[in-house]
Amino acid sequence: MNMTEPIRVAIAGHGNLGRGVEAAMGHNPDMQLVGIYTRRPPEQLRPRQPGTPVFAMETQPGHAGRIDVLILCGGSREDLPRQGPEYAALFNTVDSFDTHARIPEYFTAVDAPAKANRRTALISAGWDPGMFSINRILGEALLPDGETYTFWGDGLSQGHSDAVRRIPGVAGAVQYTRPVPAAMERARNGSRPALATREKHRRECFVVLQDGVEPGPVREAIVTMEHYFADYDTTVNFISAEELARNHAAMMHGGFVIRSGKTSANTTQTIEYSLKLDSNPEFTASVLVAYARAVHRLHAMGQFGAKTVFDVPPGLLSPRSAEQLRAGQL
Amino acid sequence: MNMTEPIRVAIAGHGNLGRGVEAAMGHNPDMQLVGIYTRRPPEQLRPRQPGTPVFAMETQPGHAGRIDVLILCGGSREDLPRQGPEYAALFNTVDSFDTHARIPEYFTAVDAPAKANRRTALISAGWDPGMFSINRILGEALLPDGETYTFWGDGLSQGHSDAVRRIPGVAGAVQYTRPVPAAMERARNGSRPALATREKHRRECFVVLQDGVEPGPVREAIVTMEHYFADYDTTVNFISAEELARNHAAMMHGGFVIRSGKTSANTTQTIEYSLKLDSNPEFTASVLVAYARAVHRLHAMGQFGAKTVFDVPPGLLSPRSAEQLRAGQL
Ligand SMILES: NC(=O)c1ccc[n+]([C@@H]2O[C@H](COP(=O)([O-])OP(=O)(O)OC[C@H]3O[C@@H](n4cnc5c(N)ncnc54)[C@H](OP(=O)(O)O)[C@@H]3O)[C@@H](O)[C@H]2O)c1
Ligand SMILES: NC(=O)c1ccc[n+]([C@@H]2O[C@H](COP(=O)([O-])OP(=O)(O)OC[C@H]3O[C@@H](n4cnc5c(N)ncnc54)[C@H](OP(=O)(O)O)[C@@H]3O)[C@@H](O)[C@H]2O)c1
Repeated sequence: MNMTEPIRVAIAGHGNLGRGVEAAMGHNPDMQLVGIYTRRPPEQLRPRQPGTPVFAMETQPGHAGRIDVLILCGGSREDLPRQGPEYAALFNTVDSFDTHARIPEYFTAVDAPAKANRRTALISAGWDPGMFSINRILGEALLPDGETYTFWGDGLSQGHSDAVRRIPGVAGAVQYTRPVPAAMERARNGSRPALATREKHRRECFVVLQDGVEPGPVREAIVTMEHYFADYDTTVNFISAEELARNHAAMMHGGFVIRSGKTSANTTQTIEYSLKLDSNPEFTASVLVAYARAVHRLHAMGQFGAKTVFDVPPGLLSPRSAEQLRAGQL
Repeated sequence: MNMTEPIRVAIAGHGNLGRGVEAAMGHNPDMQLVGIYTRRPPEQLRPRQPGTPVFAMETQPGHAGRIDVLILCGGSREDLPRQGPEYAALFNTVDSFDTHARIPEYFTAVDAPAKANRRTALISAGWDPGMFSINRILGEALLPDGETYTFWGDGLSQGHSDAVRRIPGVAGAVQYTRPVPAAMERARNGSRPALATREKHRRECFVVLQDGVEPGPVREAIVTMEHYFADYDTTVNFISAEELARNHAAMMHGGFVIRSGKTSANTTQTIEYSLKLDSNPEFTASVLVAYARAVHRLHAMGQFGAKTVFDVPPGLLSPRSAEQLRAGQL
């Protein structure tokens, strides 16, 4: 492509993901961050680069001509179901909607306004959904006679940490999801094991108790909690508030997509994709930024409507032209 | 897509890859193998499924109406430079052209006849080039501030095995390329090491000597061989012809694409894609078959000319429809 004009990108929502997009923009010289939009009073935000303009969300409709791609960084539960369809009528968008079960409904809600207004809206990018999804469908397409396993971790789970924090007597907590190495080995070796929930992952909690609270009942409340911990082997460690702040602030995550299958009777083939992330939101944001480049190009080609990562040719994510990619990267 | 008519696929060239395509077709019920074409007398070939028709290569021009996608399974050195452009004028094609340095030239040679005849020709699919290439460009796009490392192996290298076999006194030989674990660890940990050739891979040969030949000079001839072994730490094992046949007939291969980079000052992120293949040609063939499905769809969309794996949306490789993929696989 090698366009001389940088792609003008804006951020809607300045949480972990929004700040990650700011960081990622600095590594992509073919793009320019033209603004951050927030529902909070703009003066409350502190962008990474002090010069970046911050706008109130409601000024957006007037800014359609200034933005090539708007990256939606709101939460999947409350924000995106409203923001996705609304902004897809005004901008080309990228988001990381990750409520897997509601993706078809969300796709439809975004597709209609995007098509009606000749916009391109890429939904559910990131790593899961996102890069892991791509690897799941490719694994299945390349090795149809096989089995796919997704393992998550080692990683901090926001939802499970929140669940622990809601237990009476808990002053602070984080929860790590850890894949079980023996299960991963079985997934890799082609034996196609049926792995129970408990066999695949274990959970480890680091908990700060309020003053004078007994650990025993808190531990019991955690390990027996339905939907969250009851089906897992869970370890609970009690630590100090200082240790929590010092050692458990990083939003590390990652995981593995393993596809193992046979191409003939005695021939086992294994494909594995893995991520080891010091920061889940910064990596997710980096994916969104690369897809912003692809969305800009899809829009220029006249491909309007809602899209997913399954619809995007990999070459469109690269800043290099198709010729450059063929010459140097194939 | 869910087309009721199966995609009619044919094979041009019945070597390791051609036989792999035959095996892969059995796992893809939305496709049908309609024939194998060979330059040898057709009666000399034994297809996996006795019912598969075998044709002389020169009958192909008359068969254009019977074949949706022709998978070219000839060698990259001698066969594809002629067959690729010739058949792209008559059929939609997929090939695994793997002479990396000559890809731009080959692309141009295939693109012109394909465009002129409204055909779609996917070149250089497989795993390297192919899946590894996709992971190299995605790694770079997602983590622009980083470094990419490709390791190959453990795997049997045809070219290096041939080089050993040409040494006087050698009756038979295989060569394995093995990645050095310490180098892989350094590539993964984000320190972005500069790795010399010798540090990344080592080479191991299993050699059968002709009667009465001394091993010393043969070992010396191998380890000092320019371009092949001189830059590597090479181990040479002398074995019997029986052991060679028993333990070293499998065309195992595989490798790793590792991208490690920073998204902010202290945040290291690592992406790793790996393959562990009992059979290199069977896996390569499975990739070609999945791309045959994609080529059939691209052709139906009017996307003519030469394409590479960078141009193909991942969803087109799957037998499932876009709706099915969004509902179940994202
Ligand atoms: N696909 C994937 O692989 C993947 C991976 C990770 C995350 N995600 C998705 O990304 C979404 C966003 O994650 P996140 O970690 O960025 O969420 P977050 O930090 O909670 O931010 C969500 C929104 O809350 C608002 N906000 C942030 N900090 C605030 C504060 N101090 N006070 C009041 N409001 C604040 C911001 O909007 P305003 O600026 O408008 O107030 C922000 O856009 C998640 O819901 C998840 O669905 C997807
Ligand atoms: N992209 C990747 O990742 C990747 C990976 C592996 C291989 N490859 C490529 O795949 C190409 C083909 O590999 P291959 O292992 O299939 O090569 P191969 O076994 O040597 O077959 C090449 C051609 O030679 C002919 N042939 C095969 N057996 C023969 C025999 N016994 N006598 C005479 N002719 C015979 C066949 O054509 P006819 O039937 O017309 O005689 C066949 O199409 C390689 O050159 C390589 O470039 C790519």
